Amino acid sequence: MKIVFIGSGNLSSHLGILLRKQGHTVVQLVGKSEASTTALAKKLKCPYTLDVEAISSDADVYLLAVPDHEIAGVIKRFPHKIKCIAHTSGSIPLSVFPKGFSNAGVFYPLQTFSKNHQLTHRQLPVCIEARSKPMSARLVRLANSITETVVEIDSKHRLWLHLSAVLVNNFSNHLFALSENLLDQRGLDFKLLRPLIAETAAKVMSASPLTAQTGPARRGDAVTIEKHLKLLQSSPKIQKIYRLLSESIEEMQGPSL
Amino acid sequence: MKIVFIGSGNLSSHLGILLRKQGHTVVQLVGKSEASTTALAKKLKCPYTLDVEAISSDADVYLLAVPDHEIAGVIKRFPHKIKCIAHTSGSIPLSVFPKGFSNAGVFYPLQTFSKNHQLTHRQLPVCIEARSKPMSARLVRLANSITETVVEIDSKHRLWLHLSAVLVNNFSNHLFALSENLLDQRGLDFKLLRPLIAETAAKVMSASPLTAQTGPARRGDAVTIEKHLKLLQSSPKIQKIYRLLSESIEEMQGPSL
Repeated sequence: MKIVFIGSGNLSSHLGILLRKQGHTVVQLVGKSEASTTALAKKLKCPYTLDVEAISSDADVYLLAVPDHEIAGVIKRFPHKIKCIAHTSGSIPLSVFPKGFSNAGVFYPLQTFSKNHQLTHRQLPVCIEARSKPMSARLVRLANSITETVVEIDSKHRLWLHLSAVLVNNFSNHLFALSENLLDQRGLDFKLLRPLIAETAAKVMSASPLTAQTGPARRGDAVTIEKHLKLLQSSPKIQKIYRLLSESIEEMQGPSL
Repeated sequence: MKIVFIGSGNLSSHLGILLRKQGHTVVQLVGKSEASTTALAKKLKCPYTLDVEAISSDADVYLLAVPDHEIAGVIKRFPHKIKCIAHTSGSIPLSVFPKGFSNAGVFYPLQTFSKNHQLTHRQLPVCIEARSKPMSARLVRLANSITETVVEIDSKHRLWLHLSAVLVNNFSNHLFALSENLLDQRGLDFKLLRPLIAETAAKVMSASPLTAQTGPARRGDAVTIEKHLKLLQSSPKIQKIYRLLSESIEEMQGPSL
């Protein structure tokens, strides 16, 4: 397919590379900042423009990969209303496209994208929603070319997935960062935790996290919990997080203390 | 070396299998419950007893792998005070061994062990502490036979590592479990989150979690945070966790809202 990317960030970069590898052509890149747009256009071997209104009319799909708060603004200036255009956000509903956009859709990859780590995952889930049958079919075909996991879900369910992604990705990573801080302050190396972090993720690749749960709160081990809370006396925020998550584990599945 | 295991749970099972593979001999298993002790003795191809006082005197190292609250009791009944005995707990200090135990130590593997998932990790960190130089050298040698990562640290630092392990393992897993619940209730499959969980762990294998942090709180995206909090109105506990962790991310590294 012929694809136009709007947005020159990590998402366009990752998707662009994946899609080109599958034989699709990026026919144009539309960016805001000259520097990142030229750099990405070079990588995707495509022409570019900094003007949304000068966007090519010759594409099968337009993928809108800009920050959430810019989506509505870009749509307002987008000149080809009946073309197949999809945004890529987990938390913005399909209804962000005005009525005239009869082939609007959503192409939401449920993954975290970073500059220095190209994805190759054939299990990358892509969530599809579309206003028309042909657009839905086209987006599913596009997604199927890069992954085995394509699901059609509506905006409400997509928001639940996005929220869950915040819990499992952003919040877990923050727990890693808090630990790094605590260890740094005592001259201990964060890398000691890496095998444990790898195993924590590996376990739930087949099992349910409910059965994989271990630890003092799961066992109702009040002695250890008290030791940890005492240790955290000088870090009240982390102490609060520790208490709340332990309570929540006990509530979900632990024996009462 | 000739090793006696005291305790017939996951830890003895995993360590026993790893150590036997490296040519060590399990000369005896000491257990509490007949069923689990005979089963594990069969796996480790060794004799067993259910009586701590009948423990063999012919071993180079005694590894005490029982629940934390049973450690002191077992030590009290252990008949060979000057032998090399080490417990395997992150949160119990070396001082749990009375003075007479002149070769006591700690052999703490920083990892999560589950029944159905044998570890093979050469990076498994093992934390060593010992009351005597010979005991320290012996435990380091034992650890080095199964892993590349052996660190000597004292009881205070070990407790910090144990606390960090709770944050990165137990609490992350609980966030996975909460997400599984939320998705289940909406007919969405937890497996959609698996590639994201795998990538979350993969990212911090080389990078610092501080630089790997993404998400609404990191970006100061108050609109998305509000959407998520509203969605969680019927789950006050998760809402509280969401709010607290978002605040903590902002405090550590996000722009002010």
